[in-house]
Amino acid sequence: MKMKKKKLVVMKFGGSSVADAEKIKTVARKVFAKTKLGHKAVVVVSAPGDMTDDLLEMADKISQNPPDRELDMLLATGEQVSIALLSMAIHELGGNAVSLTGPQAGIFADSSHTKARITQIKPSKIHDELKKGKVVIVAGFQGLNPNQDITTLGRGGSDLTAVALAAALKADECEIYTDVKGVYTTDPRIVPEAQKLDRISYDEMLELAGAGSQVMQARSIEVAKKYGVDIHVRSTFSEDEGTWIVKEVSGMEDVVVSGVAYDKNQAKLSVTDIPDRPGIAAKIFGALAGIQVNVDMIIQSAAQDNTNDISFTVSKADLKKAVPLLESVSKELGGKGLLVDEKIAKVAIVGVGMKSHAGVAAKMFEALAQNKINIEMISTSEIKVSCAVKEEDGQKAVQVLHKAFGLGTKIKSGAK
Amino acid sequence: MKMKKKKLVVMKFGGSSVADAEKIKTVARKVFAKTKLGHKAVVVVSAPGDMTDDLLEMADKISQNPPDRELDMLLATGEQVSIALLSMAIHELGGNAVSLTGPQAGIFADSSHTKARITQIKPSKIHDELKKGKVVIVAGFQGLNPNQDITTLGRGGSDLTAVALAAALKADECEIYTDVKGVYTTDPRIVPEAQKLDRISYDEMLELAGAGSQVMQARSIEVAKKYGVDIHVRSTFSEDEGTWIVKEVSGMEDVVVSGVAYDKNQAKLSVTDIPDRPGIAAKIFGALAGIQVNVDMIIQSAAQDNTNDISFTVSKADLKKAVPLLESVSKELGGKGLLVDEKIAKVAIVGVGMKSHAGVAAKMFEALAQNKINIEMISTSEIKVSCAVKEEDGQKAVQVLHKAFGLGTKIKSGAK
Repeated sequence: MKMKKKKLVVMKFGGSSVADAEKIKTVARKVFAKTKLGHKAVVVVSAPGDMTDDLLEMADKISQNPPDRELDMLLATGEQVSIALLSMAIHELGGNAVSLTGPQAGIFADSSHTKARITQIKPSKIHDELKKGKVVIVAGFQGLNPNQDITTLGRGGSDLTAVALAAALKADECEIYTDVKGVYTTDPRIVPEAQKLDRISYDEMLELAGAGSQVMQARSIEVAKKYGVDIHVRSTFSEDEGTWIVKEVSGMEDVVVSGVAYDKNQAKLSVTDIPDRPGIAAKIFGALAGIQVNVDMIIQSAAQDNTNDISFTVSKADLKKAVPLLESVSKELGGKGLLVDEKIAKVAIVGVGMKSHAGVAAKMFEALAQNKINIEMISTSEIKVSCAVKEEDGQKAVQVLHKAFGLGTKIKSGAK
Repeated sequence: MKMKKKKLVVMKFGGSSVADAEKIKTVARKVFAKTKLGHKAVVVVSAPGDMTDDLLEMADKISQNPPDRELDMLLATGEQVSIALLSMAIHELGGNAVSLTGPQAGIFADSSHTKARITQIKPSKIHDELKKGKVVIVAGFQGLNPNQDITTLGRGGSDLTAVALAAALKADECEIYTDVKGVYTTDPRIVPEAQKLDRISYDEMLELAGAGSQVMQARSIEVAKKYGVDIHVRSTFSEDEGTWIVKEVSGMEDVVVSGVAYDKNQAKLSVTDIPDRPGIAAKIFGALAGIQVNVDMIIQSAAQDNTNDISFTVSKADLKKAVPLLESVSKELGGKGLLVDEKIAKVAIVGVGMKSHAGVAAKMFEALAQNKINIEMISTSEIKVSCAVKEEDGQKAVQVLHKAFGLGTKIKSGAK
């Protein structure tokens, strides 16, 4: 019999995994089984199911514009309910567990209520409890700010708690349990033959996340990359291996394209007939940055008659605040107007292999052309090529690209 | 125009006062109005309506015997929801408020999870926020134990938080808002002409509480008495003055009886034919104390044939654990058995005036006798006379005594 290494594992379960008593018991059994193998476990949980929405609804009945500090005080109760119930469920199995709020676990954050950043983790309490042989259950999504107030970490905050804790504790791995089996070559609802990836690099995952893949938020991946945390994305409801998100290794480059991303939540904006002189782009994008609107896929057309068009994409959710601002900026610059096109979709191919393989973009454009899909905009990075296409062509484009790069067959992203 | 004194007031609202958004807004308006008069307010709230029961139900689905520490972690979220929502509601009115959990407010407690005692209050954070002109909203019912864990204070815990905070802050008064208008001469459901008392002394209130009056728990009154906190029990849904619970003043003695208490949750136990020798009573009541059963109204019959009967009352809720123990103790002592009578009720007259008026007990017994109500047990204290009667006679006894001592007419308990 081979001696297996006893590991320290951070396990993170999302809200759907702790939505009711039965699901909490399932999670407890998973955690208990891990400790039965001799491993130490730190568990991070989100609020149960719809609880965050229910709390927001309660707040909404009282104030349309509640102070962020009080919203955080309210929302932090959701995770506190989860940790207490999960701890009870582990005790019920005969295990020994202790629940800790974010502040109790030593998670410190800045003062940006509702979207705070973790500034520091002081894990001495966690270490103490682990030494006593306990499973430590930590409330995700929350920390303590310098004013001793509870702050929440915003969307994807529980993933961030898990990854940051794994880094601070020097955990052997960080398991992100979810309701999908891992990261796929593309959205299986669009391409049924999409394959689960065994491994993917941080950078590829970042590009997939940025391009609309919903498995994990970009900032959690960034922290994992920074501290070299091995992430294992897997299903709560299965024992199968999921997808490992890890440091890029040489073998990964054998595969040129790891996945196809799809994002239909972007809109295209064009500021037309503006003067072709220095500082114009800075003026436009500086104004957008000032109202926290992120811009993607910028294209400046060749100058004609000393005028220019600038097109770019923004999130549809930001249109409402971006459009009035751009109309006034355009006017100020002497532009002729602002065109808004909400009927676009963005498709992108992602893979670290692109860095060492030529002709990848050309192959992408050719595949789209052969299928009569017109490309409206193009942007590229070292490991990604993105195209904006008409919204109605979006899903077809994903299917075409998935097939063109042979992603429907197994063996991907380096040897496992 | 007379200058009114600007006061520091602790205001406590129970769960029924913050059960939904509309009720929370009502509370917010009450608090805001107080600050508009120039007063400073520290507000203590319980969990909304049925939330504590809902949380217990969730726990119950997971474990029949959850660890107390985790139960406290779970239950403490209820008050945290209330403080956040109330703070939002005050902001919505244009006020400035800040919510604090028990630990944030500097409330320290011992480690008896689910029934902790407050050990210390360090109100520096509260003082800081008051100085900034804020209403400070504190979660009732919770504190931090020496292990940095959240503990809850058990039944009546939010009242206790309010009274203890009023003492620590040297507040001018402590308002306990409830769904009744104050403390009555007796239960108005039994005696419709029962009168609201304008004032009552701590000791009278303690005797009323011990005798089953549900307005406030005894331990909150004890703390108020110890630190001389003036308590004002009043209705959330009215502007009328309620009842002041205060230090005994000379005028109070003019009224002999302030109220009639009624308790139908007691059972009578009799251990019969036990030897008449020293140490027997200590053996019986020591055993009951060992399993945390409180005993009231002890009567030892005169010895006959060197044997004795001892009768006493316990709470019906404690019967299940008291009976098996007493059966074995009785057997050990050579007793003949244990009689249990659940069909009793306890009625009591309470008043500081008794100390200086003779014949009060006699008047009570006579009134009961004239109405053919048999007295099964009697016990007395300086300011109380209690009688156990048959359960079926209980309500009638209350009505008879209320009338006999002239409590149905105004002017009571000293000048206001």
